[in-house]
Amino acid sequence: MAHVLDGLPIAVDAMGGDRAPSEVVAGALQAAQELGIPVLLVGDGAYLESLGPHPGVEILATTEVIEMDEDPGKAVRVKRDSSLVRCAEAVRQGRASAMVSAGNTGATMASALLRMGRLPGVQRPAIAAVIPVPGSTPTVLIDSGANVDCNAQMLVQFAQMGWALAMERFGIVDPRVGILSIGEEPTKGNGLVKEAHALLAEGRAGPEVRFIGNVEGRDVMSDRVDVVVTDGFTGNVVLKTLEGAVTAVVGAVLGALSSTEEVKQAAKAIMPALVPLATEFDPDTYGGAVLLGVNGVCVISHGSSGARAILNAVKVAHHAVADKLVARIESVIGSGRD
Amino acid sequence: MAHVLDGLPIAVDAMGGDRAPSEVVAGALQAAQELGIPVLLVGDGAYLESLGPHPGVEILATTEVIEMDEDPGKAVRVKRDSSLVRCAEAVRQGRASAMVSAGNTGATMASALLRMGRLPGVQRPAIAAVIPVPGSTPTVLIDSGANVDCNAQMLVQFAQMGWALAMERFGIVDPRVGILSIGEEPTKGNGLVKEAHALLAEGRAGPEVRFIGNVEGRDVMSDRVDVVVTDGFTGNVVLKTLEGAVTAVVGAVLGALSSTEEVKQAAKAIMPALVPLATEFDPDTYGGAVLLGVNGVCVISHGSSGARAILNAVKVAHHAVADKLVARIESVIGSGRD
Repeated sequence: MAHVLDGLPIAVDAMGGDRAPSEVVAGALQAAQELGIPVLLVGDGAYLESLGPHPGVEILATTEVIEMDEDPGKAVRVKRDSSLVRCAEAVRQGRASAMVSAGNTGATMASALLRMGRLPGVQRPAIAAVIPVPGSTPTVLIDSGANVDCNAQMLVQFAQMGWALAMERFGIVDPRVGILSIGEEPTKGNGLVKEAHALLAEGRAGPEVRFIGNVEGRDVMSDRVDVVVTDGFTGNVVLKTLEGAVTAVVGAVLGALSSTEEVKQAAKAIMPALVPLATEFDPDTYGGAVLLGVNGVCVISHGSSGARAILNAVKVAHHAVADKLVARIESVIGSGRD
Repeated sequence: MAHVLDGLPIAVDAMGGDRAPSEVVAGALQAAQELGIPVLLVGDGAYLESLGPHPGVEILATTEVIEMDEDPGKAVRVKRDSSLVRCAEAVRQGRASAMVSAGNTGATMASALLRMGRLPGVQRPAIAAVIPVPGSTPTVLIDSGANVDCNAQMLVQFAQMGWALAMERFGIVDPRVGILSIGEEPTKGNGLVKEAHALLAEGRAGPEVRFIGNVEGRDVMSDRVDVVVTDGFTGNVVLKTLEGAVTAVVGAVLGALSSTEEVKQAAKAIMPALVPLATEFDPDTYGGAVLLGVNGVCVISHGSSGARAILNAVKVAHHAVADKLVARIESVIGSGRD
């Protein structure tokens, strides 16, 4: 692995997440050491200094922490010296190229929005989550929780931003963009979906974005579509439903494989074949969701992120910067028709 | 198995579903033969007569069929001699005790609503689907597709009806009713969810219905809740998302188990442990969803239902009649507060 360690660092919120700071810091250190990506650890000064110096690792000492269950808007306004707010500030000030946090999702969005600002023309930033698809590139699910109540114009922009991410992150040429509904026909869906469908069908997302029409819940984890567009309420429900289903099925399979001594013995021989699956379905593999539509790269990791998830999140942030994700989004938003 | 064969038959739409009439009829005949539940086969006279006489099996010859992709409202108005409309009519006329169809879901709802009518006080009938939970009783998901745009009062009634079904179908004492949202706090969710939460929290569903607050997507396939209340758009998306996720994970596991000759050999020994899981996660095991809020029992089977699914659907319908599901729903709707 090349140890580059030049360029601006990725700001990592050392205090955010259920397993912060130890696991978060461990992941960030690995990113510097193993991937050669410089990081800026943002958080409790005494703790971070106690780790000693590491090549490619800078420290930004802060005095406050936004807890997982705090009211996002209020916390961001009041706790100006929190690790989260300082991460976003570091990006705005050009001290870091991107930010990563596994902390309070609402506060992460609020910090990014307040400090980095929205991209010109973007109505509302949205969270793009990454859904694993066995044997294929992942599906981008946007919005997966930033905006609970949406209008049709917002969904058109989610289509544009998700499309840009699918190209950038997974190298998909001409990604297929679908809108989540309850039937394939354009007449199926609630009022919001039907209106957004009409706008997308008439090319409001611009000439480049390939709209394939309605898709259904069963398509999210399939190779039928690359970008699934939905409002933040439905998207968040889908994301957590998938999480629950994968956990339930995997749990049931593992339970069955240890049901008797005989089965347990036989299962040993097949475990090597099953382990790669566990990695494929593990959300940590994808390093987290991305907040799109703000003027900077902001990766939102799962609250339960361990070192490996943070390592991958830093990698995702690094590539997004290198691939000019923000400029791509600005460009596709600009090519849409009002 | 006791061969009772008395009482009113269950009307089965012999022409409804992707695998109709052969698989549907096979399932209905099994119900009569193996479970002693009398059935009324409704459909093409020539085809049904050609099967010859069977104990406990009556035939109602019809001349029309509503196709899977027809417009439900129009089809039900125009095709008065369709198998679907005649099934609902047979229930209203007291010729059958309940109906089962794997055909056009919208047309099934429309037929039931037009011919059986709504129960007094019910704003809108809703579809209750059954979600398997490994190692526990299934979860009732209501509404899973009947009403795409809902108001909060409708969700309160869905809570009442789902509660009655969880008691009747799975014998759950004091079922836990939750509303599907994107966080556990009452402040989380879209406008509809917050309003419905408030109504349920102040006891509008009546003194018997135990409301446990918001639940999330990951709880649907867990033992944390018995009845998940949501609008028909979100519910249908969740249902199909679960279907897709289970298919993807199970497919990936089976793929991994046949990846090499060595693994394939070892897998043979563990298959007996995995087969019960396949049954547990197979929607056919539960015989389909139920339309609640109409004045009669109407079971809506999956479009792809085979004989086993229809057999189970007839069993579900039979038990719903025996357990007086409709009267239970009428009673809980009546005990709600306006």
